Amino acid sequence: MKKEIYLDNSATTAVYPEVVELMSKIMLEDYGNPSSKHNKGVEAEHYITQAKETLASILKCDKKEILFTSGGTESDNMAFIGTALANKRRGNHIITTMIEHPAILETTVFLEKNGFEITYLPVDSTGCVKLDSLREALRPETILVSIMYANNEVSVVEPVAEAAAIVKEYNPEIIFHTDAVQAFGKYRIIPKRENIDLMSVSSHKLHGPKGVGFLYIKDKTKINPIIFGGGQQKGMRSGTENVPGIAGMALAAKMCYENFDEKIEKLYELKEYFVGKVLEIPGTTFNGKRGHEGTPHVISISFENVRSEVLLHSLEDKGIYVSSGSACSSNKPALSGTLKAIGVKNNLLDSTIRFSLCTQNTKEELDATIEALNELVPMLRRYTRH
Amino acid sequence: MKKEIYLDNSATTAVYPEVVELMSKIMLEDYGNPSSKHNKGVEAEHYITQAKETLASILKCDKKEILFTSGGTESDNMAFIGTALANKRRGNHIITTMIEHPAILETTVFLEKNGFEITYLPVDSTGCVKLDSLREALRPETILVSIMYANNEVSVVEPVAEAAAIVKEYNPEIIFHTDAVQAFGKYRIIPKRENIDLMSVSSHKLHGPKGVGFLYIKDKTKINPIIFGGGQQKGMRSGTENVPGIAGMALAAKMCYENFDEKIEKLYELKEYFVGKVLEIPGTTFNGKRGHEGTPHVISISFENVRSEVLLHSLEDKGIYVSSGSACSSNKPALSGTLKAIGVKNNLLDSTIRFSLCTQNTKEELDATIEALNELVPMLRRYTRH
Repeated sequence: MKKEIYLDNSATTAVYPEVVELMSKIMLEDYGNPSSKHNKGVEAEHYITQAKETLASILKCDKKEILFTSGGTESDNMAFIGTALANKRRGNHIITTMIEHPAILETTVFLEKNGFEITYLPVDSTGCVKLDSLREALRPETILVSIMYANNEVSVVEPVAEAAAIVKEYNPEIIFHTDAVQAFGKYRIIPKRENIDLMSVSSHKLHGPKGVGFLYIKDKTKINPIIFGGGQQKGMRSGTENVPGIAGMALAAKMCYENFDEKIEKLYELKEYFVGKVLEIPGTTFNGKRGHEGTPHVISISFENVRSEVLLHSLEDKGIYVSSGSACSSNKPALSGTLKAIGVKNNLLDSTIRFSLCTQNTKEELDATIEALNELVPMLRRYTRH
Repeated sequence: MKKEIYLDNSATTAVYPEVVELMSKIMLEDYGNPSSKHNKGVEAEHYITQAKETLASILKCDKKEILFTSGGTESDNMAFIGTALANKRRGNHIITTMIEHPAILETTVFLEKNGFEITYLPVDSTGCVKLDSLREALRPETILVSIMYANNEVSVVEPVAEAAAIVKEYNPEIIFHTDAVQAFGKYRIIPKRENIDLMSVSSHKLHGPKGVGFLYIKDKTKINPIIFGGGQQKGMRSGTENVPGIAGMALAAKMCYENFDEKIEKLYELKEYFVGKVLEIPGTTFNGKRGHEGTPHVISISFENVRSEVLLHSLEDKGIYVSSGSACSSNKPALSGTLKAIGVKNNLLDSTIRFSLCTQNTKEELDATIEALNELVPMLRRYTRH
């Protein structure tokens, strides 16, 4: 079998073997329902408590501030719909940005149909939200502001702490949410230090299993559940807890934050090395922010006169897996909202590739990818131009 | 280690080793995001398609009628809220029963707060819904009728096909839903033959993993999504699909339906054997329906003058795991809605134990349980009476 080079880690990641091992043990032996009153239930409940403690210690928060969900999308939906339900008497205005993930931008469409008014903040050419536009958008009836921590398509980290400070200064009752699906595991995020009330996280972006995530909910934040039933998780998210998924996610998170600085520094080195080499190919543009001003793992590059889908499949033939646009959106035209919002020229929208790294990628893999690009890009351009 | 006798299979089940093996392979090797356009995405998508085909062949439906969710609770929530959202212009009346799972009874509370009117049908002393009361409850503004397929606390299967026929005769536009969480895997359910439009299923009740389930949605049924985002599953349930969970659930379901009649017959034999022996203990009552008129796996027995929680823990000391009330309800007082609804006397409500079987339970395990009950019940009664 051809060796695979997986550079699509922002879409999803391989699960750590240690995580799979733990989940297997839980599924085969410690399979109790946490709501059961006997030992097997208590044992299952214990995995959940442990997972909360692990995540709380990473976020330096209380373990009761962790709510488990079925993933980043449900976390984002709950942040928006749950906040809207709980605060509708106070106001109907929500502020977010133009470059959020569809889990937010489609939820706002739903809320707009149900009487809420949404302001979408613009971003600059690197994808960074304009704080002046946030200041102008705040109103007495604003109940929620949501700004993603790091973008999923281009290398940019948002000024979340500054934005949250502006919001809280205007009105401390406004709830501040951040979608940290691409950031948790890459940044040390201390929600209380950054004035974050709600934060969405997904497990499968950090070498944990799919189908699980969490929403950090600062104590006393006004938010309602959006899924009703047996009253699990203090009534905030009913449904038998996904014990193996929850335990697996917490272990994956713990592993991500071991030797953290070293691993992230290695990612930045790989990123800069790769970007430098790829930009030597004529007609290429980097989108987002270089070096430490951007995220360590997302690399968006536009290749003039190359259709991204064709390049994607040509790389695939060599066992190299990348993404055109964001793979989190299914069955959608490839044209990306983020790329448009940051002003990528029309002719490049469909010529942009996202390479996304994880700490297991090696310089050798990137060298092989650079070699492939050096061969493929000129060749594909010849085909396009004939 | 003491041998465990797990008789709490209606709360949750051990995952089949074959299922764990498949899920491990997917998490370690075939971990792609189904929305990714390269091989690893296509491979992941293929697992989902296969899972749909497996489930569709069991239900004799089309594979596009299977919608994956995070579990039975989400399926029930979607059936109710999604139907309410899609049909609110046609009416605001919903009919269900008094003995549904909290995933339904708490969702109706939410809908009542949002302008919907709910009729809760009574049941007879075995837990069987009264069809006359259904006939009387139907109104021009009724949009949804939901009757569970099999109860989770007592051994009763509802007359779903008859109820659905009554509903459809009254008005074919009314959507008929059944919560089949306790029934799928125990009954051959052909939704189209029984006039079922929507049906909720949970994976972890049938030796599949927790955190996944599905909603059968008959083609052309008017229902809206309740979770918004990347547009996965044709926009009906956004969020990266839980590929290992989905594939695991489908394999578990397939295994449940292999040698099906034989296995279910064995369950009925075990049930009747066990019930017969336990009822030899004085002051015991069986709740629900005996033999084939009830479900094969749920055995509810009231033990006069014994507190169920004390008996539960005494059995636990012997490695026997059972349930008092329904373990799907967390942090709730033990008193059960179903037991009250079927008219169990007040003094027995807190003296009722649910033993729930799976096909892996043996006659030897039940003999050991009977022996334990014969020892414990008289002893606990002496303590209670002193």
